[in-house]
Amino acid sequence: MADPRAGEQEDPLRSWRVLREPYYVDPGGQVEAFEAACAAGSPVLLKGPTGCGKTRLVESMAWRLGRPLVTVACNEDLTASDLVGRWMIDGQGMRWRDGPLALAARFGAICYLDEIAEARADALVVMHPLADTRRALVLGARNELLAAHADFLLVASYNPQHAGGTQALKASTRQRFCAIACEYPPPELETDIVSREGGVDRALAARMVELARRTRALGLAADTALEEGASTRMLVRAAQLVREGLPPRRACLHALVEPLGDDSEVLGALRTAAELAF
Amino acid sequence: MADPRAGEQEDPLRSWRVLREPYYVDPGGQVEAFEAACAAGSPVLLKGPTGCGKTRLVESMAWRLGRPLVTVACNEDLTASDLVGRWMIDGQGMRWRDGPLALAARFGAICYLDEIAEARADALVVMHPLADTRRALVLGARNELLAAHADFLLVASYNPQHAGGTQALKASTRQRFCAIACEYPPPELETDIVSREGGVDRALAARMVELARRTRALGLAADTALEEGASTRMLVRAAQLVREGLPPRRACLHALVEPLGDDSEVLGALRTAAELAF
Amino acid sequence: MADPRAGEQEDPLRSWRVLREPYYVDPGGQVEAFEAACAAGSPVLLKGPTGCGKTRLVESMAWRLGRPLVTVACNEDLTASDLVGRWMIDGQGMRWRDGPLALAARFGAICYLDEIAEARADALVVMHPLADTRRALVLGARNELLAAHADFLLVASYNPQHAGGTQALKASTRQRFCAIACEYPPPELETDIVSREGGVDRALAARMVELARRTRALGLAADTALEEGASTRMLVRAAQLVREGLPPRRACLHALVEPLGDDSEVLGALRTAAELAF
Amino acid sequence: MADPRAGEQEDPLRSWRVLREPYYVDPGGQVEAFEAACAAGSPVLLKGPTGCGKTRLVESMAWRLGRPLVTVACNEDLTASDLVGRWMIDGQGMRWRDGPLALAARFGAICYLDEIAEARADALVVMHPLADTRRALVLGARNELLAAHADFLLVASYNPQHAGGTQALKASTRQRFCAIACEYPPPELETDIVSREGGVDRALAARMVELARRTRALGLAADTALEEGASTRMLVRAAQLVREGLPPRRACLHALVEPLGDDSEVLGALRTAAELAF
Amino acid sequence: MADPRAGEQEDPLRSWRVLREPYYVDPGGQVEAFEAACAAGSPVLLKGPTGCGKTRLVESMAWRLGRPLVTVACNEDLTASDLVGRWMIDGQGMRWRDGPLALAARFGAICYLDEIAEARADALVVMHPLADTRRALVLGARNELLAAHADFLLVASYNPQHAGGTQALKASTRQRFCAIACEYPPPELETDIVSREGGVDRALAARMVELARRTRALGLAADTALEEGASTRMLVRAAQLVREGLPPRRACLHALVEPLGDDSEVLGALRTAAELAF
Amino acid sequence: MADPRAGEQEDPLRSWRVLREPYYVDPGGQVEAFEAACAAGSPVLLKGPTGCGKTRLVESMAWRLGRPLVTVACNEDLTASDLVGRWMIDGQGMRWRDGPLALAARFGAICYLDEIAEARADALVVMHPLADTRRALVLGARNELLAAHADFLLVASYNPQHAGGTQALKASTRQRFCAIACEYPPPELETDIVSREGGVDRALAARMVELARRTRALGLAADTALEEGASTRMLVRAAQLVREGLPPRRACLHALVEPLGDDSEVLGALRTAAELAF
Repeated sequence: MADPRAGEQEDPLRSWRVLREPYYVDPGGQVEAFEAACAAGSPVLLKGPTGCGKTRLVESMAWRLGRPLVTVACNEDLTASDLVGRWMIDGQGMRWRDGPLALAARFGAICYLDEIAEARADALVVMHPLADTRRALVLGARNELLAAHADFLLVASYNPQHAGGTQALKASTRQRFCAIACEYPPPELETDIVSREGGVDRALAARMVELARRTRALGLAADTALEEGASTRMLVRAAQLVREGLPPRRACLHALVEPLGDDSEVLGALRTAAELAF
Repeated sequence: MADPRAGEQEDPLRSWRVLREPYYVDPGGQVEAFEAACAAGSPVLLKGPTGCGKTRLVESMAWRLGRPLVTVACNEDLTASDLVGRWMIDGQGMRWRDGPLALAARFGAICYLDEIAEARADALVVMHPLADTRRALVLGARNELLAAHADFLLVASYNPQHAGGTQALKASTRQRFCAIACEYPPPELETDIVSREGGVDRALAARMVELARRTRALGLAADTALEEGASTRMLVRAAQLVREGLPPRRACLHALVEPLGDDSEVLGALRTAAELAF
Repeated sequence: MADPRAGEQEDPLRSWRVLREPYYVDPGGQVEAFEAACAAGSPVLLKGPTGCGKTRLVESMAWRLGRPLVTVACNEDLTASDLVGRWMIDGQGMRWRDGPLALAARFGAICYLDEIAEARADALVVMHPLADTRRALVLGARNELLAAHADFLLVASYNPQHAGGTQALKASTRQRFCAIACEYPPPELETDIVSREGGVDRALAARMVELARRTRALGLAADTALEEGASTRMLVRAAQLVREGLPPRRACLHALVEPLGDDSEVLGALRTAAELAF
Repeated sequence: MADPRAGEQEDPLRSWRVLREPYYVDPGGQVEAFEAACAAGSPVLLKGPTGCGKTRLVESMAWRLGRPLVTVACNEDLTASDLVGRWMIDGQGMRWRDGPLALAARFGAICYLDEIAEARADALVVMHPLADTRRALVLGARNELLAAHADFLLVASYNPQHAGGTQALKASTRQRFCAIACEYPPPELETDIVSREGGVDRALAARMVELARRTRALGLAADTALEEGASTRMLVRAAQLVREGLPPRRACLHALVEPLGDDSEVLGALRTAAELAF
Repeated sequence: MADPRAGEQEDPLRSWRVLREPYYVDPGGQVEAFEAACAAGSPVLLKGPTGCGKTRLVESMAWRLGRPLVTVACNEDLTASDLVGRWMIDGQGMRWRDGPLALAARFGAICYLDEIAEARADALVVMHPLADTRRALVLGARNELLAAHADFLLVASYNPQHAGGTQALKASTRQRFCAIACEYPPPELETDIVSREGGVDRALAARMVELARRTRALGLAADTALEEGASTRMLVRAAQLVREGLPPRRACLHALVEPLGDDSEVLGALRTAAELAF
Repeated sequence: MADPRAGEQEDPLRSWRVLREPYYVDPGGQVEAFEAACAAGSPVLLKGPTGCGKTRLVESMAWRLGRPLVTVACNEDLTASDLVGRWMIDGQGMRWRDGPLALAARFGAICYLDEIAEARADALVVMHPLADTRRALVLGARNELLAAHADFLLVASYNPQHAGGTQALKASTRQRFCAIACEYPPPELETDIVSREGGVDRALAARMVELARRTRALGLAADTALEEGASTRMLVRAAQLVREGLPPRRACLHALVEPLGDDSEVLGALRTAAELAF
């Protein structure tokens, strides 16, 4: 059985290193909580809506801690083997290939399970021994118990608005994490971000932020067909469309309104709001 | 691990280049919005009914931008691996084969996810990191993070009339796109298209367009068994049947009426409309 | 990557050629509509009950047009790869094998999707680019875009009485076809067919046709457990049993009545009808 | 591509030949109907309850016609490929292996689909072209159209009492067969069979038959939990237990009563009937 | 095609031989019925609750008859191929490997389908031809019809209390067996067994049996959340815990009460009963 | 067939040995019951809430007994083959690889099925013969019956609060175990544990334990959306966050409150409780 390190002189985590410092402004205490959990050896769970900056926070922490960031885009097809690794056929027989979780645990990286609630709850069970005091990964197919590297850190994110239904995390999974609640940035900070990342002046950014906040209020109202309001990410997109020459009203239609849904009543209300705003 | 480019001296995107300019008339602002989104590095989502010209718009943009157009016909069987790539067995062991998404991201092409709402929502999650500021694709099976080529552009299309149900896109997917709403062309323009592409005179084309518009009105009425009205594509087909010698009434029956459904009441009403029209 | 044509000097469509002219009488206009659609480069959809002669029409057209007829018996297991092709392992590694759709598109044949509504709607999505003006097939696993041969023609058939439920075709699939409605032949013509193909005299054939028409009336009545009436194919079978020596009443029981269902009330009524008829 | 006959000098149907004449008494007309359908080139469908003698009829016909009998035990896992054949890996690459349907069609045998309603309806679609005038099998994976041998005959059996629900055969499948209804033999004949096959005297056999007929009456009553009554096969078993030394009452309990179900009320009634009978 | 016996000089049934006589006391007539069915060549079905001694009866019969005992632990994943056998890849290509049913049929053993109702009903269909007068197994993948060895015997067991729902056996499967109803032993005999197998005196064993009988009465009452009462096997365990030093009350809690369920009301009642008993 | 021990000179259980004594305080009688069951050769089932110390008990027993601890993280994907073993392809053909259950049974270890109720009930059926007096594992794919090593012990754990629904264990599985009910430690002991493992003084630990006990009371109330209260494991995490510098209130929010759920009402109540406590 070939050693998984044999023939891989190169840095196995090379493509996962964060090379430039990401732009991230802490809206209040998130970095501190993240660092404490990390120092306590606890996995970290980020809860918050789509596009509010969870991934940026993780990238920023990876940069600060100087650790590679191995990202897994969770989805319903993800199996335990996808996370842990599997045997692959080769000219000389079978060769073991670490999955992202084993890779991060073996060589010391942050393993980031993006949108963890999209994964089937039972596939996640394999990370339980990694996420408690055992800090070990069972590689069943190798009959190996892999003790995690000291720099290994498990981070996961999800959107609690979507995960309330059947896709909820198991209690036995949730309870292995320290959880940090994330929200859209407060208006002043969000205006700064839109202006800086989208390349428009603060006045226009502020009007766009105001429009986005109205869509979020609509999304929270239980009786509308709108699942969620416009995110910070969408605001940056709208600003960029303006920077590329579209008038603000059309930019907001394409970047803030049309992507939100297909229900004709909701779209009508949103279009009117965009037209009144610009 | 073999380099995916080794032994492929030939242009890996050769068969995806658009060699002739497609016939496309912009009904108003779609090209401008597409170009702005493209310049802002944003993915583009085209929303509109079957056969209204979404694919033509993409082909036309690929031609204008001079970029290859890698098309994926989305369906429920499509897995994340189909999009990203997989290991294949070979005389010398295993060789990596890029999927269409990785191919377009690596070498710089438009990746067009046709009828994106047909794909299982969770398979699409793999393109999330490509569709935000990271512009990178996680090749999990290679433990590689592929940074997208500057010419890479992600485009998707779907029909919101069909996608309102269980197959709706996730909010976290939708919100990564700038969206452009597409409609059937206005009557004058549609008559031009039918006459030019179908090879019949404008008078006949106009009567056919009028008949198609009546079926669309029927399709919108909530209490009929008609899912959707006749499209521009069907109108061109009807005109071509006339050009090949069928009388207009029979051409409309075969190309505009019979393909619309099997409900005997609806078919009866549509047949009567066709008979009155010609 | 081996060229799919290498090492296949023989005619790859040999076994699909129609060698003898099939017996087919056009009940009115079907051949003309088929030829117009074919000349216009449009796919053809035949709608009609089981055993009314749809397959015969296609065989007859293949003979008239002198094109091979590649038949696909659609079923729920049929995947997009079954239609398009796949890589197969070989002494020298992997070799590509065209599926029937790619075979017909590459070398120029009629591809006949028999009982298309039995296929899962999403597997059929792969033929969409072949069925519109692109006339091209995406061989995703080869990263190849295959332009269809000029002689390629796509034909499909289904029974609208069965396909009204969950197995309905997608609008985006239907609207890519010109559709021809098929029915059982009128009594005179059906008597001719039964007499000629079944080898019985016209008088007996006429009484059998009359009995079959009564079962069809029963099948249409919404409140019976009879799904469908006796078809032309079943009539020919009944006549052949007479030719082989069974008395007409027993021939009709075995060929026209018992195959129609298991509901004891319905079977009782049908048996009585058969006994009264002979 | 290796010829499927290469390297198989031996008779490929050897183990399927019927070497001894089976004991079968025609209860009336079944053999005649079977022979007529066979002469007319029609597939044969046997409808009747479990254990009434359908398989014996087929074995008897295979013996009379001198043709091998290739049996397929239908089940929900059966795929179209299981019936038709598939490519298998070998020292020299891939080799084609005919499935039972292809084997019977290629070399001329009866292919017997036992309990056809247990198969998924869509897997059976592959035999449609074999079961109409085309008499050909589409070997999709070989791109081959296999014309059936003159001695090929398709026979299927099922129990209409079980198949009335979701597992019903498609109309398009049923209508390709001539159907023969089978029943338990009349009392006199059944007594003969039980006495002869079970090795007990006619008097005891007659009392057992009388008991079995009472369970059948119970099975037909709609409001009992008894699915079906005791079959001829079970009667023969009960007689054999007597022959091996069990008293008739206990033989009937083990062979006629306990196998019929688990509902305590029904079992109580049946046990009482057995005790009263002996 | 390699002969399945080639290269297997050793006894293929070696590990399945029963080497020591199992302890089994016939509660009344079960051995006699088993022997008669075996002599009549009939499969045997044992019906009874978990832990009442069905497996012991089979082991005892295998010992008496001097035949190997090939056990299959039925479960929902079990496929027809798992029972029959399959082709496996080898240095020299593919090699056939008999499944347990084929192994027992080929070389002459008892094949014991433990908890047959756990298997999917349709996977069991493959054993039908083995379980009637044909006594042959269809090895579809080898195109072989395997005639059973004279010593082959098919035995199955299940618990009718669990199998009453969706997992019921098909009538066509049940009716191929002679069935023997099994119950917990009568109190005197059960006390003997617990005393002997558990290593405690008869007085204590009798009090434990009395407690178990009370839980069984509770399990039969339709309105409790208790699925089933304590079995003979659990009684032996409780006695063994006492033998290992636990006080009887705690032994009964761990071995007779806690394993029975999780419903707090039921557990409360059972704990009280255990405390009153000791 | 290669011997599974060939070429594995090294200790096959090496990575599963427990090298340091785990910290575990017996809350009362659990160790005694575990040892008695072990001496009686009975499998052990630990029932109790998430994070109450079940895994610690097993680790502690493995240390005391000096046996390796092979852990299986049960999940819905786990198949019988994953537990038992499978054939793998190799340069020389196929090689057998023991699964964790076979490994532990062959060489003598504790096999720990963590969260057994997450496994599909039918996959667990394979361990039945290991868990009764037979103490043998059926390696179906090898046609081998593996007698368990004298040191083999089967241990399983689950949370009865979650397993009450569809994922309940089969009675035939449960009844093969001696079961030990586990609870959160009593307050004094839990305070000791939190103080010692979390590194905070007893006074603070006691206030945290008090807060956790309030959340548990809330979890038991049937009408709240809170599935379960805060566990001992979460308390240790909260203490560690304080040790790393977070104020107690924020530590409790991130470690005791946010991980418990997403329902805004419940979270509000829990946040208030945390704020009142500190």
